[in-house]
Amino acid sequence: MGKVKAQLSISADGYAAGPSQSEEHPLGEGGERLHEWVVELAAWRRMHGRPGGAVNASTEVFERAAGGVGAVVMGRNMFGPVRGPWTEPLWEGWWGEEPPFHVPVFVLTHHPREPLEMRGGTTFHFVTEGFDRALELAREAAGDADVSVGGGPSTIRQAIRGGHLEELLISQVPVLLGGGERLLDGLAPGDAELEQAEVVEAPGVAHVLYRLRYRR
Amino acid sequence: MGKVKAQLSISADGYAAGPSQSEEHPLGEGGERLHEWVVELAAWRRMHGRPGGAVNASTEVFERAAGGVGAVVMGRNMFGPVRGPWTEPLWEGWWGEEPPFHVPVFVLTHHPREPLEMRGGTTFHFVTEGFDRALELAREAAGDADVSVGGGPSTIRQAIRGGHLEELLISQVPVLLGGGERLLDGLAPGDAELEQAEVVEAPGVAHVLYRLRYRR
Repeated sequence: MGKVKAQLSISADGYAAGPSQSEEHPLGEGGERLHEWVVELAAWRRMHGRPGGAVNASTEVFERAAGGVGAVVMGRNMFGPVRGPWTEPLWEGWWGEEPPFHVPVFVLTHHPREPLEMRGGTTFHFVTEGFDRALELAREAAGDADVSVGGGPSTIRQAIRGGHLEELLISQVPVLLGGGERLLDGLAPGDAELEQAEVVEAPGVAHVLYRLRYRR
Repeated sequence: MGKVKAQLSISADGYAAGPSQSEEHPLGEGGERLHEWVVELAAWRRMHGRPGGAVNASTEVFERAAGGVGAVVMGRNMFGPVRGPWTEPLWEGWWGEEPPFHVPVFVLTHHPREPLEMRGGTTFHFVTEGFDRALELAREAAGDADVSVGGGPSTIRQAIRGGHLEELLISQVPVLLGGGERLLDGLAPGDAELEQAEVVEAPGVAHVLYRLRYRR
């Protein structure tokens, strides 16, 4: 069986998104700075059907985090910005016609909806029975491959609180956001034991890979 | 002229000390975990007059942060736990008879007090005119050597807000503290620009050295 893993970029002051998140600024004020290191990578651009890009110390880190993934679990806000029930015309999320996942994606929501099949192998499944059920479905779909918990921060925390997340890659970006949403806020010391598995220095970002263990 | 620098160990969830700090637990619950990597170093033990210890990738990082320091600025709580005015018998701080600084140390306080000369070259000077004055005195005392802003977190933030801090070494420890005092809380994006100068993987800790720049 594959492992359950997550990757998130955070600011030096610990925010996974800037303040004042909105439909227009889903990453909050200044939040796009957190992702500059990845969108400039050739490996990321290839995955998103774009040419060019850089090859550097982040490449291998990114390829390992994004590779070997057989299914994704994500929170409602990572699929698309609409709150409340789905409305007509049904929003297809902000990932475009050919989302970069190429595997089944299980979206946590309170509102039932038929699966949405996109080009390139991504099908969004909408799960109303909570995180644990979404993870169960994702594990089944992934088979021997990994399950990626795509975010946002609260979904990753659920994966930790439930004792499911096995690897967490934190990509620390040298910027102050001054506010926003924190990744590990509200967790208790007993929720997980962290082992520092790897640290990688790359241009404009420091990657720290943690392995998580649970005593229960 | 030397530079103004600081080093602080923080948890994976961003705390520089654990919850429930008190006189008995100045580092808060679980906070001593933040310093395990340094107290086991031979370089640290030598500085504190203790034998033995480890040599590893943290050694050079620690020696650079602790070396070349001509004066120290620290907050009141880093000198000692007494709150309110100094009381008789005058508390000599919790650094022992021969503190590990071996240079003049400027302690921020609201309560005037005569300088306190300890063994080994450390003299504590008590400064009631605020951070900027303490830094000015420390720069004078340090001459061409560096000034170290010893902490705690609020003193380091003052050094950033005032545009003084030039290097900040954050030593990130793989532990969840679940609460406590955060280093960079309450800073605004415009307070400083951070440049990632170096990242070092060491046993049980990830060191990220930032250079700070100020637009004003």
